[in-house]
Amino acid sequence: MCAYHPAEFQALTFHDAVPAFREGRDSPRKYLERCLETIDAREPTVRAWVEMNVREARSVADRSTARYLAGRELSTIDGMPVGIKDLFMTKDMPTRMGSPLFRDNHTHQDTACVQALRAAGAIVLGKTVTTELGMSYPGPTTNPFSHRHTPGGSSSGSAAAVGARMIPAAIGTQVAGSVIRPASFCANYAIKPTMGAIHRGERLALSQSHVGIHAGDLRDMWHVSIEVAKRSGGDPGYPGLYGETTLHPATRPLRVIVMEAQGAAELDDDSRDAFERFLTQLRHAGVHTIDRTNHSLVDSFERAIDESLEITRDVCAYEMRWSLENLVERFGGGLSDSLTSRLELARKMSIDDYRQLLAQRDKARAAHAAIAHIADAIVAPSSVGPAPKLDNQGLDSGISHTTGLPSYNAVTSVLGAPTITLPLLAVRGMPLGIQVIGQQHTDQHLVGLGRWISETIPARSV
Amino acid sequence: MCAYHPAEFQALTFHDAVPAFREGRDSPRKYLERCLETIDAREPTVRAWVEMNVREARSVADRSTARYLAGRELSTIDGMPVGIKDLFMTKDMPTRMGSPLFRDNHTHQDTACVQALRAAGAIVLGKTVTTELGMSYPGPTTNPFSHRHTPGGSSSGSAAAVGARMIPAAIGTQVAGSVIRPASFCANYAIKPTMGAIHRGERLALSQSHVGIHAGDLRDMWHVSIEVAKRSGGDPGYPGLYGETTLHPATRPLRVIVMEAQGAAELDDDSRDAFERFLTQLRHAGVHTIDRTNHSLVDSFERAIDESLEITRDVCAYEMRWSLENLVERFGGGLSDSLTSRLELARKMSIDDYRQLLAQRDKARAAHAAIAHIADAIVAPSSVGPAPKLDNQGLDSGISHTTGLPSYNAVTSVLGAPTITLPLLAVRGMPLGIQVIGQQHTDQHLVGLGRWISETIPARSV
Repeated sequence: MCAYHPAEFQALTFHDAVPAFREGRDSPRKYLERCLETIDAREPTVRAWVEMNVREARSVADRSTARYLAGRELSTIDGMPVGIKDLFMTKDMPTRMGSPLFRDNHTHQDTACVQALRAAGAIVLGKTVTTELGMSYPGPTTNPFSHRHTPGGSSSGSAAAVGARMIPAAIGTQVAGSVIRPASFCANYAIKPTMGAIHRGERLALSQSHVGIHAGDLRDMWHVSIEVAKRSGGDPGYPGLYGETTLHPATRPLRVIVMEAQGAAELDDDSRDAFERFLTQLRHAGVHTIDRTNHSLVDSFERAIDESLEITRDVCAYEMRWSLENLVERFGGGLSDSLTSRLELARKMSIDDYRQLLAQRDKARAAHAAIAHIADAIVAPSSVGPAPKLDNQGLDSGISHTTGLPSYNAVTSVLGAPTITLPLLAVRGMPLGIQVIGQQHTDQHLVGLGRWISETIPARSV
Repeated sequence: MCAYHPAEFQALTFHDAVPAFREGRDSPRKYLERCLETIDAREPTVRAWVEMNVREARSVADRSTARYLAGRELSTIDGMPVGIKDLFMTKDMPTRMGSPLFRDNHTHQDTACVQALRAAGAIVLGKTVTTELGMSYPGPTTNPFSHRHTPGGSSSGSAAAVGARMIPAAIGTQVAGSVIRPASFCANYAIKPTMGAIHRGERLALSQSHVGIHAGDLRDMWHVSIEVAKRSGGDPGYPGLYGETTLHPATRPLRVIVMEAQGAAELDDDSRDAFERFLTQLRHAGVHTIDRTNHSLVDSFERAIDESLEITRDVCAYEMRWSLENLVERFGGGLSDSLTSRLELARKMSIDDYRQLLAQRDKARAAHAAIAHIADAIVAPSSVGPAPKLDNQGLDSGISHTTGLPSYNAVTSVLGAPTITLPLLAVRGMPLGIQVIGQQHTDQHLVGLGRWISETIPARSV
């Protein structure tokens, strides 16, 4: 356990090691060995990993080392050790999806984004813990800044491994808040890009699901995102992530919208104070803030998104029904109460109920498009507070503990809009992120705005 | 072999047997046994099936029989024996996908549409032959009207089984022309509905892929489509097939557009004559015809769709790349030359090449939307002629034979527009279908137009 001080915390980054790789003063193999040392030290408490393939990782690291010395690196992430959320297939490891029903699920395939990582020379170090099928029921991972707190979910292991400095970057997924919330709790930078921007492989069954990237800073986050997207494209039928390989220049926003969503009502007092101080600093830096009280279009937008959690819950339930029915039929049990209740919800839904949800989602997207030109971005806290405590029954008791509320997150999943989280705040010694949200396909520019904000507003501890 | 005479051919239908099920004069079990007799007689030549589960089929038929006697049938297709293209998962049979690499692929799951069929009381009789992974390389199936001709592909077994009167309906899929072309060759009625109208299960990797339905007449075709869609919905994020359970009334079109697409230039003379006579009859029945020579919007539309085959080929190659790479990596071989060349094509494509294709596709869709209100539907032949002959090397020689050209079909796959085929023509003793094409989500009304056409224009042999 080590309380979080954002001004002092040095996340693990990769890009700054690259010049030394080229000069032979350091190497991807040595970088990997340092990661493995950190994992040895932290993993007994953090429990971020399901499985690792260290032998293969070392072999890939050695090949990467040779490429740097020959001046022939494959990409900006050549030699970078990366963790893969265990919802995705890797050819050398099973895909257990946080469920005992998939204990022996070995597909011998690489998901599209994993294939792209390997093609870019990155090191697929291992599989990181996910909640059950990426939904609510948690795995064993703890928060890297306090083993008594949740790392968040569902990308629990990816967020915790990056927060614990075990690896510089990891792959996550988000349907409601599964990238941004754990990244907020674990002091990651992270991006949940525009809908369809990074290929999901066979995991296309949920219409709001996105691949996201967790990293120690914005540069590594962007490098992983764009190197993967260039190689595996976006989801079928989507244009994929737009942008150059190099990080966008820091770009000052003139105006930002401060979003309430469904989170503001649940924000604790300390977190609200921290966020308000951030906004004050933003204003002092010359950024004008707009909210529902002073702009009618923003008020319309807030009203259009005020059921994002409910839309997300019901859309996912309907879309998961057929695969959950298969699991029930095949195994006769083995789903958590949480997933069982989702299935029961789905069984009560008709196709017209689902169409109603899609219409609500379209309405939210239209309201978001309508505010495109009144501000440069939307800002909000990335979660309703720092990571909540784990259930005090303990991790191995079989009693479910919460991974936190996605009240600030479901909205961008519903909108398919890109969002990034910046680890700028600390509340009661634990991290809390700031979200910056853009319009669809503005991911690259959004990262430039985030870069300006994180370089301009000093990280502070409340 | 039995030459096709459309005025004489009596397809196998199901809905007309239902009254006798209710009265106990006939039963789903007896209906199934008659199907099995036909299969016994025709299968040695037609070779439509990969595998059947006759024991389970009989058990389901007996339960259906009891439901009819109790007046408690589950749907309009309760007790209907249906064939499932072997790209889809069935919990009781492997999913071999026409490839030796998937010989042992048993997922123990039902695809969403199969689950819906069972929920509606239908009998999932078995898996029908597909070309390799639903692409070009053919399986062993022959045309039910001549064993020297192809049944078409990729839904070869589904089309042939319906054409051979083995079953009243079957599930197919279409990415380019894989439902409508084989249905044309095998004298089926068939629908390739609006994009996303029927849930594809996990087969979401190709952005132009659609589930389609083959049947002996329009009523059974519609019943299967709507009963499935009501239960499993459309693809994730899509509203699914709109419509009532009952077949739409026959609806007379006032105006139709006669489409050239990329097929007209390849139409053989006999087929062209047959289609022209059909158009003459349509005009005599009071339907006004429009084409590119007399309407500038139609000319713009024809220009916007004149690379549909190339768009389809390249979109699919790019989207299949990651999964084909996995097969090459895992098995080191076992792909046909045809699939290998698709992979080589994909390896040369960049994400911007793919975006270019999506932009062309959007342009074609916009040009289609622009003609929505100048006519009630588009008509065209369903294929560039009747089924071509199989390679004269024979079926077991390992030499590839063509399953025919999708030159009239890729367009609706690109547009995501609904299309139905009506088996109204015969050319040189073999079937040739007429396509009727609508705007997205007008499927139900389109079937009403097709009903009027098939009831009004006498089927003729050329």
